[in-house]
Amino acid sequence: MEKDFEIIQLFEIYKGLLTSKQVEIFSAYYYYDLSLAEIAGEDGNTRQSVSATINKVKKKLLRFEKLLGNLKKEKELSALSSEIENEAVRLKLKEIIGK
Amino acid sequence: MEKDFEIIQLFEIYKGLLTSKQVEIFSAYYYYDLSLAEIAGEDGNTRQSVSATINKVKKKLLRFEKLLGNLKKEKELSALSSEIENEAVRLKLKEIIGK
Repeated sequence: MEKDFEIIQLFEIYKGLLTSKQVEIFSAYYYYDLSLAEIAGEDGNTRQSVSATINKVKKKLLRFEKLLGNLKKEKELSALSSEIENEAVRLKLKEIIGK
Repeated sequence: MEKDFEIIQLFEIYKGLLTSKQVEIFSAYYYYDLSLAEIAGEDGNTRQSVSATINKVKKKLLRFEKLLGNLKKEKELSALSSEIENEAVRLKLKEIIGK
């Protein structure tokens, strides 16, 4: 479940690099909590092809993170922000990292 | 020239998302300062196809930046770091942004 949470965080960061079909299937599975069979039924895909797409997306997201490290940086910056005493600077940092 | 400098900064950030051929041609043109004709000669490509690859890479890099904004964030964080008075925190921030 922790692992899935991380995959969703990666999806939020990198979804712009996925195809619209990949975004659609990933969202249906993780955000709308549909089963593989339900997603397959909607577009006339097989359960297997939906499952393969989800696994492909996971691999792509992990590869993007390995190459760019945006989630890691976001976490490190978020942790660092608590060490900044000047409130204005701390708020600016939070604004830049987007949370 | 300013524009080219930005493209090189984007290349440094996003090159992992390019194909090895794209990296090779882009590097030959921007880092080794070869002409289009020289690059074309090396691999038996045409001058036109090399030029098309370079333009495609530029478009991809600009698209990655539009989607992820890593260079913009890096610049903003770099500017912000000068406002952090605590040296240890400032150094940590610089370490995270990688400069």
